[in-house]
Amino acid sequence: MDTRTSAFRLRIEHVQDALHRHGFAAVLVPTSDPHLSEYLPERWQGRQWLSGFTGSMGTLVVTRERAAVFADSRYWTQAEKELADTGIELVKIPTGNATEHVEWLARQVKAGDTVAVDGSVLGIAAAQFLQAALDQAGARLRTDFDVLAEVWPDRPDLPTAAVYEHRAPQAPLARAAKLAQVREAFLRQGATHHFVSTVDDIAWLFNLRGSDVSYNPVFLAHALLDLHATTLYVGVGKVSAELQRALQADGVRVAPYDQAAAALAALPANAALLVDPRRVTLGLRQNVPAGVKVIEAINPSTLFKSRKTEAEAVHVREAMAQDGAAMCEFYAWFENALGKERITELTIDEKLSAARARRPGFVGLSFNTIAGFNANGAMPHYRASAESHAVIEGDGLLLIDSGAQYLGGTTDVTRVWPIGRVSAEQRRDYTLVLKGTLALSRTRYPRGTLSPMLDAIARAPLWEHGLDYGHGTGHGVGYFLNVHEGPQSISKTMPEPHMAMEPGMITSIEPGLYRPGQWGIRIENLVMNVPATTPAAGAFGEFLEFETLTLCPIDTRCIERQLMRADEIDWLNRYHVVVRERLSPLVAGDALDWLVRRTQPV
Amino acid sequence: MDTRTSAFRLRIEHVQDALHRHGFAAVLVPTSDPHLSEYLPERWQGRQWLSGFTGSMGTLVVTRERAAVFADSRYWTQAEKELADTGIELVKIPTGNATEHVEWLARQVKAGDTVAVDGSVLGIAAAQFLQAALDQAGARLRTDFDVLAEVWPDRPDLPTAAVYEHRAPQAPLARAAKLAQVREAFLRQGATHHFVSTVDDIAWLFNLRGSDVSYNPVFLAHALLDLHATTLYVGVGKVSAELQRALQADGVRVAPYDQAAAALAALPANAALLVDPRRVTLGLRQNVPAGVKVIEAINPSTLFKSRKTEAEAVHVREAMAQDGAAMCEFYAWFENALGKERITELTIDEKLSAARARRPGFVGLSFNTIAGFNANGAMPHYRASAESHAVIEGDGLLLIDSGAQYLGGTTDVTRVWPIGRVSAEQRRDYTLVLKGTLALSRTRYPRGTLSPMLDAIARAPLWEHGLDYGHGTGHGVGYFLNVHEGPQSISKTMPEPHMAMEPGMITSIEPGLYRPGQWGIRIENLVMNVPATTPAAGAFGEFLEFETLTLCPIDTRCIERQLMRADEIDWLNRYHVVVRERLSPLVAGDALDWLVRRTQPV
Repeated sequence: MDTRTSAFRLRIEHVQDALHRHGFAAVLVPTSDPHLSEYLPERWQGRQWLSGFTGSMGTLVVTRERAAVFADSRYWTQAEKELADTGIELVKIPTGNATEHVEWLARQVKAGDTVAVDGSVLGIAAAQFLQAALDQAGARLRTDFDVLAEVWPDRPDLPTAAVYEHRAPQAPLARAAKLAQVREAFLRQGATHHFVSTVDDIAWLFNLRGSDVSYNPVFLAHALLDLHATTLYVGVGKVSAELQRALQADGVRVAPYDQAAAALAALPANAALLVDPRRVTLGLRQNVPAGVKVIEAINPSTLFKSRKTEAEAVHVREAMAQDGAAMCEFYAWFENALGKERITELTIDEKLSAARARRPGFVGLSFNTIAGFNANGAMPHYRASAESHAVIEGDGLLLIDSGAQYLGGTTDVTRVWPIGRVSAEQRRDYTLVLKGTLALSRTRYPRGTLSPMLDAIARAPLWEHGLDYGHGTGHGVGYFLNVHEGPQSISKTMPEPHMAMEPGMITSIEPGLYRPGQWGIRIENLVMNVPATTPAAGAFGEFLEFETLTLCPIDTRCIERQLMRADEIDWLNRYHVVVRERLSPLVAGDALDWLVRRTQPV
Repeated sequence: MDTRTSAFRLRIEHVQDALHRHGFAAVLVPTSDPHLSEYLPERWQGRQWLSGFTGSMGTLVVTRERAAVFADSRYWTQAEKELADTGIELVKIPTGNATEHVEWLARQVKAGDTVAVDGSVLGIAAAQFLQAALDQAGARLRTDFDVLAEVWPDRPDLPTAAVYEHRAPQAPLARAAKLAQVREAFLRQGATHHFVSTVDDIAWLFNLRGSDVSYNPVFLAHALLDLHATTLYVGVGKVSAELQRALQADGVRVAPYDQAAAALAALPANAALLVDPRRVTLGLRQNVPAGVKVIEAINPSTLFKSRKTEAEAVHVREAMAQDGAAMCEFYAWFENALGKERITELTIDEKLSAARARRPGFVGLSFNTIAGFNANGAMPHYRASAESHAVIEGDGLLLIDSGAQYLGGTTDVTRVWPIGRVSAEQRRDYTLVLKGTLALSRTRYPRGTLSPMLDAIARAPLWEHGLDYGHGTGHGVGYFLNVHEGPQSISKTMPEPHMAMEPGMITSIEPGLYRPGQWGIRIENLVMNVPATTPAAGAFGEFLEFETLTLCPIDTRCIERQLMRADEIDWLNRYHVVVRERLSPLVAGDALDWLVRRTQPV
């Protein structure tokens, strides 16, 4: 046992001491914060601090005798490594199943036991599910216990970074118009008030951005709207006096972050409050007076912001071109330098990020760059570190999944490149993944199709060979906002009505294939739902198709020609014509040469 | 207004009189019976008797002022015709949405109103949904009112047809073994008792068949199992003394049909009863004593019977060959007779049914033959009648959807044939539907894939051209049982865990395309889930593929060659080789000539 693992053993022991002290049987530490965000401020990275598992998702459950991390297939390899020798078990769960830890817990507890969780980071819907499972086991749930407050001595404070405005032309729709849109929506649903905790919804709604967490340009805040007034609850000092005046002009009052709970407690008895039960915590919900009618529904802003306007789409296309140009510069350098200088997965991150940073409108990365060579590429959420990274040398496949935030859009692209000699099996795998990307990219579908129903189209070419991937095919993407944004999801998730495909939505298409210990492949573009002009001309309803937004050559050297159909080759060649046309004006010299070389027709 | 429509007006008036008499605001008349079956004994065809709408699904709602039938797109054309001049509105609902009438009703009623329905034909789950909707509207629900008892003077009695045994070799698994299987399953779920009302489950479980309804070889019965005893509640006189002795030998007691309710009322207080809330009525559920624990779950028999054993599959393949041979004989006659004698849609039904009836193992048709020429083919559930049918002459497309019950399996096949000249648009439509059938037929998929997730694969070729169809892509099929059997469904329905694809399941693949007033196309085969041997050899889990069971030539003259890919043509040619090989030994003369002619490679 090394110093690292003994630290985590000790932390878990402290948690178990706390369980004894309070008479609890178990405690749940979800990967969650008061806004139920994907990226957590350090203050709420308690699951990672306690267990050492650094994955972006996963739940830690500690009982008096055991400790277990629940993680899905994207994290298995990583979690096995990070949890080794910590005494913490890894429970492998299927992707998308976020309830397995509850069932596990229900089996561990006895009737009369008490299970604790911090209700201030637990969603209303998740709390209901947990409560029901514990009820059935005869156990009690305590939601007012924050174990981190007891065992984490140097727990970080709330972030203090400044909030700034997202302005025209990149923010084409004014804040007042968005507020009116949302107000009209909650009124139509019979509500008089609406409370929002979701940070990307708030950023969109107020045309504000921040930097409280990595990668997502958001800031911690809650918002309460009634029929006339709007209050934004945000940390004191984060909004400048000037910005406060601008907000005031649009009827927005700024109040201290920690007054949100009191505002809910002060709702009038005849209020009808719209909240999204999956996006508001139990801790905040508990403040709502008993008499208030609570209407549970998806945040109206989630639906509005998913449908990018034509004015936004213009900026997105420009951001995609700048992003593609940055990649041409990077790859041109990479191919020239390979074999001449030492290149590691970390070098790739540095050089690629630098190329992006030179582009107009660049704000930051949209997620940590995943540069995985061979076996590292087989870990879908791999991140190279100073201690552990590969040198790019010899033969194999290099997977690079990267993206950035621009004032006019968010990018996310994955490509795989051959290094040295590539085997027949690698070629076959690569080609089958590419066929999946192409198949879905070309699909037309009726407007309103539930996005999960499209998932099988991308998998079918892999399924034919008995292959599959453990993650979803595509996630929604924000507009200079979160790189993972709903409501749509092209995946095996259970479809729900709000997942319907509507014009303007941006989604990734990213089938993959992972051979643990060998190599990984993923080919990802972002696409936007646009009206399709079909021969039937509307006689069978409205149809949509995907506009491929991402502009970056797809390697053709790894293609196994016999596996590709003529219509697939056509699509790829036409894509490369567009990529070359759109990127040529933005690059020169080596980068232009590289672009021309890598967009040759097959 | 003619005699027909005035009869229905009068019947609705009688219902409205009854509403006044009882002080009810509205009554619901579902298409349903005490077994929640698809095909209803005449006694429960009240919706049809009251409204004149003859479709196999649909709900009638009568308020004091209005009457409305709710039907999905399969029935719109038919319902518009049949409801014309009756004063009954047609409410068009999306396919699969069986709740729209509840929402409509909730909008019609005022707080304090009472809505009546016959609880003895209302599923538990449907009742819960209805109750919740009326609660919200402040209305009351009465479930003890059978409007048909008041307004239907000559209401038919219960069917009295004899029950008979489904014997080996076609029933390879003994009754006792099936009962043990189900008993083990409900025990595992924590139940001590299990009550079944589903007639196809009962037929499968007891290796019995009957003829109480059209097409489905089932009989009305309920069954109650505890850990040791089994009671079958069935009409007195329907089970012969000899058969009763055989049942007795397997521990099955036969009791009168109407004693099922009393048996539920007599359950011991410490019992735990497994019932399928979608397959047992509220009326029966209400008999269960308050102390009994009710476990709601899908009937174990539904899952068992959906997975045909290898021994059953052998008989299914034989039944498919006999069915294909019958079709060769019919089509040979048809092509020779066309232009020489008068052929109508009714002649087709007669001749085709006669050809099937000559085949060994034939028991009856599995549904009413749909023979629809041109515009009639555009009605997916069309049925020709003596009063209204088309003569096959001139140019166009003839759609024939037909099937039979054999002792060793149930068939269901749809083909479309060119008559005279076929237009370019008809060719294109035909080819796109065929591409849909082929695309799904060739799909491999991981075992456990939720069947609805495969739906888009069959639609994609049509979607590409802005086309679609309003029905599901495929339904489960029984084994000498119901032609529509769950739990799987390849459709836009919301997936549920029990819809997972498992080996041995038989499903139809039947994409279509309907141009109202012009023509309809549907190309349907039955397929069975079988283990797939893939290059990955299980490294990515178990995979399944479809064995195409249906053996009948698919017309190649309507194919628009340019729309077909080489791999699609290959599949079709290979299918036709198999069809010819398998059917040749079973036909001779003209039928053999026809088979050879229609299985020529493209």
